[in-house]
Amino acid sequence: MALIVQKFGGTSVGDLDRIRNVAQRVKLEVDAGNQVAVVVSAMAGTTNQLVEWARDIGPLHDAREYDAIVATGEQVTVGLLAIALQNIGIDARSWLGWQIPVQTDDVHGAARIESIDTTVMRERLAAGQVAVVAGFQGIAPDGRIATLGRGGSDTSAVALAAALDADRCDIYTDVDGVYTTDPRIAPKATKLDQITFEEMLEMASLGAKVLQTRSVAMAMRHNVNLQVRSSFSDAPGTLVVNEDSIVEQEKISGIAYSPDEAKITIQGLPDKPGVAAEIFGDLATNHVNVDMIVQSAASEGQKADITFSLGRADLAKALEIIDGAKGSLGFDDVVAKENVTKISVVGMAMRSQPGVAKTMFQTLAERGINLEVISTSEIKISVLIASDYTELAVRSLHTAFGLDAED
Amino acid sequence: MALIVQKFGGTSVGDLDRIRNVAQRVKLEVDAGNQVAVVVSAMAGTTNQLVEWARDIGPLHDAREYDAIVATGEQVTVGLLAIALQNIGIDARSWLGWQIPVQTDDVHGAARIESIDTTVMRERLAAGQVAVVAGFQGIAPDGRIATLGRGGSDTSAVALAAALDADRCDIYTDVDGVYTTDPRIAPKATKLDQITFEEMLEMASLGAKVLQTRSVAMAMRHNVNLQVRSSFSDAPGTLVVNEDSIVEQEKISGIAYSPDEAKITIQGLPDKPGVAAEIFGDLATNHVNVDMIVQSAASEGQKADITFSLGRADLAKALEIIDGAKGSLGFDDVVAKENVTKISVVGMAMRSQPGVAKTMFQTLAERGINLEVISTSEIKISVLIASDYTELAVRSLHTAFGLDAED
Repeated sequence: MALIVQKFGGTSVGDLDRIRNVAQRVKLEVDAGNQVAVVVSAMAGTTNQLVEWARDIGPLHDAREYDAIVATGEQVTVGLLAIALQNIGIDARSWLGWQIPVQTDDVHGAARIESIDTTVMRERLAAGQVAVVAGFQGIAPDGRIATLGRGGSDTSAVALAAALDADRCDIYTDVDGVYTTDPRIAPKATKLDQITFEEMLEMASLGAKVLQTRSVAMAMRHNVNLQVRSSFSDAPGTLVVNEDSIVEQEKISGIAYSPDEAKITIQGLPDKPGVAAEIFGDLATNHVNVDMIVQSAASEGQKADITFSLGRADLAKALEIIDGAKGSLGFDDVVAKENVTKISVVGMAMRSQPGVAKTMFQTLAERGINLEVISTSEIKISVLIASDYTELAVRSLHTAFGLDAED
Repeated sequence: MALIVQKFGGTSVGDLDRIRNVAQRVKLEVDAGNQVAVVVSAMAGTTNQLVEWARDIGPLHDAREYDAIVATGEQVTVGLLAIALQNIGIDARSWLGWQIPVQTDDVHGAARIESIDTTVMRERLAAGQVAVVAGFQGIAPDGRIATLGRGGSDTSAVALAAALDADRCDIYTDVDGVYTTDPRIAPKATKLDQITFEEMLEMASLGAKVLQTRSVAMAMRHNVNLQVRSSFSDAPGTLVVNEDSIVEQEKISGIAYSPDEAKITIQGLPDKPGVAAEIFGDLATNHVNVDMIVQSAASEGQKADITFSLGRADLAKALEIIDGAKGSLGFDDVVAKENVTKISVVGMAMRSQPGVAKTMFQTLAERGINLEVISTSEIKISVLIASDYTELAVRSLHTAFGLDAED
């Protein structure tokens, strides 16, 4: 007998029939003699409607009120799924974040889980009751509902699996695993049987939509056995494993792309200490996440340029902040570019294969694709390119790294 | 400075513009120097959608899950209204039932409020913060959300007004007060400036949709100053007052009608003690509310008939229960009639005017309307008639009792 945490996203619980389908998936595990906790998201579309209302009602957002509003989406799903389970003869009850409780910090709207008290839930699970848990939500120290930010249900599932010391955490989604790249733009993409936490983390943070970055980091930290699989088929999914579980890896794992990027270049910055710190400090204070950064090498006493990428949604805000600091920074000009995409090659394999960067740059160069910014880490290389070339770049790299499915 | 409880129903918060309108109504009281707690319902339509989902997901209902689902409607509204208030410069926070807490009994789906702890809320009100309270919900002894049943937001408002010892409880609705009858079928209906608790109670329980019966009973018990008024106009509403506040009352107060009634006649019941107790005991145990009851006078040792009215929605269930008891009751036959309407004349005035019943029966007889069942109380007379005659009966009685608006 094992203790399993299952997580179903918004598409998997998108209507009543799909919720009934989820109940059947839960029943399979119960019938196999397992204890089951199911974490669910809001029905697809619901959260968007709630967020839209919260935004449209007026410009000043009290994040605590925002949280009270958007947390209702998951509350509806857990109630419906509990009823659906009871209808097929399974003892089940819904758990809201504040009922468990899932204690979070006080950053409403993007809270972090601090602890989960599983005492009562464990007793119920041991007695054969399925726990149907609202993802994405907890209770802050002020006693009010806190949400974990978009996609937070993955994090809820992994945190619950860690707190329950679960044998497995299965993330059910509308795809049947993690692919070498997005099958919608590269039809020859193949499903990976295994991927390491580190690779998954890079893939997630680079735009692969399968798992939320924070949830992968948390699973890695707590060594949670994670599996990504389909709500709609019985095909085996992708296991996310420790590096030492994978004996050898010759190929890179995948090509990720993140289309909603923008680029800012600040030209003619005086070469004095603390300039970069001031720019990026101001941006961070205003919650603008900066990603890739390149600073042109200036000769002693000369002016320099700084180029960096950021999410397109933050572009206007970032430009405003930089303009506001023009007096103290003393730069010449700012140039922004909106239509850029980040393309990344990810894989543990590149640690033992020095030629990955060369293959990547050469493949793109042969297609006439200009690299605007480059950044690297131990297991990934990312480049910023003009968005028009996104599909071409992804497909060419997929072929160049030998990832294409065989016909 | 006064402490005011305001309550806005589903139509008054039906979309974002209307929620902003509600915020303005709250602001008027705040600007007048008052402390304000606002109780709100779910946005019109929302509760119906939630109830539909809970019903359609499957036949077995766990009322605790039903409550978790439907309580989300009010949760959304309080968040949105709090944001709308903040946007016009008013300090406000939302309160969910479990946060206050509003303690209820354990009858999920139709819970009764047992106590409201207003300690913290009073401090916040005194500090100038508007309390935006989710109606219709509380927390049961099992720590789970309990709802008060449909229309329960009125009860929430009155209970909160009683707990806060509020100076006034204003029920805002989509009509501008309590009318002598339904203006949709009797265009000459007029708005009442005042009505007694007792009359309002009869009107509410007889089908006038303005206030929920339980809320009126609670207001009467705790002597809450109740006012029914419009969310959409500044016209003065109807005050619901103690009997002794009304000096004299010559006219009856109104004509109520309840269209969704049914009638059952059990024929040929043996005349033995306990028969009625058995029938109505069985029905009560199964939560079928029986309203008007008439028993034919049987001669000693002969068989009798019992006729009673009930809500049409309960008819099938009631017939099933009676059929199941046929063996022990030993009656001859059961006859049911679906299309009946209860018409009632309500008013304190009838205590001093003996001719009310005569006027009522004569008016209906002149129109050829047959009275199927009659029941009376100190301040009302009700008759059951064929539904086809509803409008004719209401309008004729409205005229006969001198309630028509002058041209």
